Amino acid sequence: MTTSSSASLVDQLRAIVGAQHVLNEGDLTAYEQDWRKRARGKSLAVVRPANAQQVADVVKACAAAGTAIVPQGGNTGLAVGSIPDDSGTQVVLSLQRLNAIRTIDAANLTMTVEAGCILQTLQEAAEKQGFLFPLSLAAEGSCTIGGNLATNAGGTQVVRYGNTRELCLGLEVVTPQGEIWEGTSGLRKDNTGYDLRDLMIGSEGTLGIITAATMKLYPLPAAQLTAWAAVPSLDHAVTLLGLAHKQLGSGLTGFEVMGRFALSLVDKHMPQLRVPFIGDEAVPFCVLLENSDSESEDHARARFEALLETAFEDGCVTDAVVAENLAQAHQLWHIRESIPLAQAEEGLNIKHDISIPVSRIPAFVAETDALLAREIAGVRLVNFGHLGDGNLHYNVQAPENIDAKAFLKNEEDRINTLVYDAVEKFGGSFSAEHGVGSLKVDKLEKHKSPVALEMMRAIKRGLDPKNILNPGRVIQV
Amino acid sequence: MTTSSSASLVDQLRAIVGAQHVLNEGDLTAYEQDWRKRARGKSLAVVRPANAQQVADVVKACAAAGTAIVPQGGNTGLAVGSIPDDSGTQVVLSLQRLNAIRTIDAANLTMTVEAGCILQTLQEAAEKQGFLFPLSLAAEGSCTIGGNLATNAGGTQVVRYGNTRELCLGLEVVTPQGEIWEGTSGLRKDNTGYDLRDLMIGSEGTLGIITAATMKLYPLPAAQLTAWAAVPSLDHAVTLLGLAHKQLGSGLTGFEVMGRFALSLVDKHMPQLRVPFIGDEAVPFCVLLENSDSESEDHARARFEALLETAFEDGCVTDAVVAENLAQAHQLWHIRESIPLAQAEEGLNIKHDISIPVSRIPAFVAETDALLAREIAGVRLVNFGHLGDGNLHYNVQAPENIDAKAFLKNEEDRINTLVYDAVEKFGGSFSAEHGVGSLKVDKLEKHKSPVALEMMRAIKRGLDPKNILNPGRVIQV
Repeated sequence: MTTSSSASLVDQLRAIVGAQHVLNEGDLTAYEQDWRKRARGKSLAVVRPANAQQVADVVKACAAAGTAIVPQGGNTGLAVGSIPDDSGTQVVLSLQRLNAIRTIDAANLTMTVEAGCILQTLQEAAEKQGFLFPLSLAAEGSCTIGGNLATNAGGTQVVRYGNTRELCLGLEVVTPQGEIWEGTSGLRKDNTGYDLRDLMIGSEGTLGIITAATMKLYPLPAAQLTAWAAVPSLDHAVTLLGLAHKQLGSGLTGFEVMGRFALSLVDKHMPQLRVPFIGDEAVPFCVLLENSDSESEDHARARFEALLETAFEDGCVTDAVVAENLAQAHQLWHIRESIPLAQAEEGLNIKHDISIPVSRIPAFVAETDALLAREIAGVRLVNFGHLGDGNLHYNVQAPENIDAKAFLKNEEDRINTLVYDAVEKFGGSFSAEHGVGSLKVDKLEKHKSPVALEMMRAIKRGLDPKNILNPGRVIQV
Repeated sequence: MTTSSSASLVDQLRAIVGAQHVLNEGDLTAYEQDWRKRARGKSLAVVRPANAQQVADVVKACAAAGTAIVPQGGNTGLAVGSIPDDSGTQVVLSLQRLNAIRTIDAANLTMTVEAGCILQTLQEAAEKQGFLFPLSLAAEGSCTIGGNLATNAGGTQVVRYGNTRELCLGLEVVTPQGEIWEGTSGLRKDNTGYDLRDLMIGSEGTLGIITAATMKLYPLPAAQLTAWAAVPSLDHAVTLLGLAHKQLGSGLTGFEVMGRFALSLVDKHMPQLRVPFIGDEAVPFCVLLENSDSESEDHARARFEALLETAFEDGCVTDAVVAENLAQAHQLWHIRESIPLAQAEEGLNIKHDISIPVSRIPAFVAETDALLAREIAGVRLVNFGHLGDGNLHYNVQAPENIDAKAFLKNEEDRINTLVYDAVEKFGGSFSAEHGVGSLKVDKLEKHKSPVALEMMRAIKRGLDPKNILNPGRVIQV
């Protein structure tokens, strides 16, 4: 592409969205660097349209110029899928200005929102009207619902409410041709052709640009209680999960597991958080449980206590506390959510976001822990995650007293290979909730079935034949 | 295609599945006529493979010969999507012999089953191990899970558990090229590329042939109660639904609405069923509610009574009965499920399977009832359905004392147009849970957005470029 045609594209973009919303000078770090600061690109320009029609016009202009588009929400993704490459030729299309809550339909239990709405804003808007929007994850103060949809974000309430996918009833999408597909229906049943909604969800901006969505709402629970339980092994944690499903039914809205070493890092770097049972070295794992109740706090507490009584009798819990009030509940959750920060305090580390069928997790962890200990002397494993969904953040901290940066440089690829090969052996996934982005494109090629890869390529070629949308991310065509 | 090449294809199919499993003479009505006897085709042969590899080999042979394949499960679909056309050139591929339950994974709450398993068999197998497989619909004694997945079947428990789509975690699929995609993972989180699972689900055998699936299980509820309530209007039924969501939470597992005329047909043709409140002509609608409880029957009853008390106070229920035992509950459900049969007894009729956002249903029904009454003198509307999902079976019975067959011949197209145009106006769908098949291909062309149609065509062309799988169904390419 010549400089003059680029210039003329930027002029066209200015004409579409207004000159002040086309950024191509000054500090563009927020748009060009990924959340974890693993990569930095350089865009031709950052374009900030105000509505779906402007998005469509931007796409048309870019497609005509043969210029690639990188759609971007809150840019909080963990797989480097929403920043430009370093060529200076890609346009970042930021959805942040599409931030209206279009409607809340109480009788239909839905809200229709624009892609750039911050997740926390949606939680609060729902609550204000007496409803729960259950998607909840660490970045909720900065991530956008469009990004959540594009990556099919998970989080802490998936055991009850599912991933972002399960919370969405309809989408408005701009296609790679710059057409607007108006599909924000609030229908719970609609069998009129292929499921384009779910195809777009999780496609990380490579098949279409989500501009709005209709999301499910739930009645606010009357009470929500949190408990923290010490379990004698991962096997017992799985047994406890089964008991909780049986006794709480769909009251079970959270089930997190945390290994002793993960909790010891929180205790070491944030002693003020007072991690329960950390003094007892015989406790290898703790579980955080959340029980939501449509009746009352008393009822929730009685149900929780009945569950824990059975669990004590069965020997799958050795000690437990139930939060007495909301402040205590927040404190327990805060410990769980502080693990990544405690890890960072301890030093550079290698993160994995894997899933395994719940029934196979104990065997996977035992075998893979042993394998890594054998292969990498002194390796330290930070194991925690959403056991209720079979999702572990099976992270690796460098051995003590060595240069973590050098360790990562030398060992990260080998450790990833060991972990992901083990995951494949146990029928798991190398990316449970973070997606593929540009970070795991090679992992997809290696671990996904060739038949699935060929179907994915056919779909990408069919929908985006010019390879305009987020090229090179997710799948190579 | 010449006769000799056809003969040689049939020989190849015999070699793949065994001569006794290639049927091309005798009475093939069960395979060539649709469930409602609206259409009858003629196949080149009916092929009954025993496993996924044989399915793949059959597809390869047919693809090489340029012969179209019509995949078929229990052949109970309502949109004429699983029978051959009348050319005598299409191969019916019956999945009925793939009927093994491969595994039940209790700790993972999943079962992996082959496509030809009868739905009721799966319900029973799950229950035997203490689990609930919640998909439930009228044809459950004959339909197959493969067919349920191919059509994304709905049914009576969608308000809590979702459609078949929401109950599926993974698929094994034979592609139009005869490759096997092994995707029966039991993972609740897996963000590694495009959502091929959901693309296949609901594609009615036009993109791939589902040979096995991993489905979700739930703990069996401790108790399940059924109530029947008289409501003064559809608006009040919607209010009652909101109350039930709020007070019962996810205990609400069924919410069906039935109009007075629909119930009067049951009363007329099956008086022994004793329809509650049918003697009171002031009752325009009744609601059937189901409450599932993870605690006890006493608890379920107390919760139900509290709900009905609030509903009486609010004036949205004027009379109600709660079933005292399982037999009474079955009797109430039997009344609901007898409406289609009572309609058939009354004479030929026109069926619609529509969905509308729940909040707009009262206005839709009021407006469309009035429109039809104005346009078609004496028309009788049989209105019932799954209000909890916004899904109405908004059926039309011929006026009394006229020839129903002639009425249908003269008026069916006009009535469909009036109803579907109204549905579109209210943001609804012309096919909520039955699919498109061959029956509604023209409706899809008319009511679906051109942008969506173009995406669907691109996907069909990309995945099945030879148009081998169920051609002409769902979407014309």
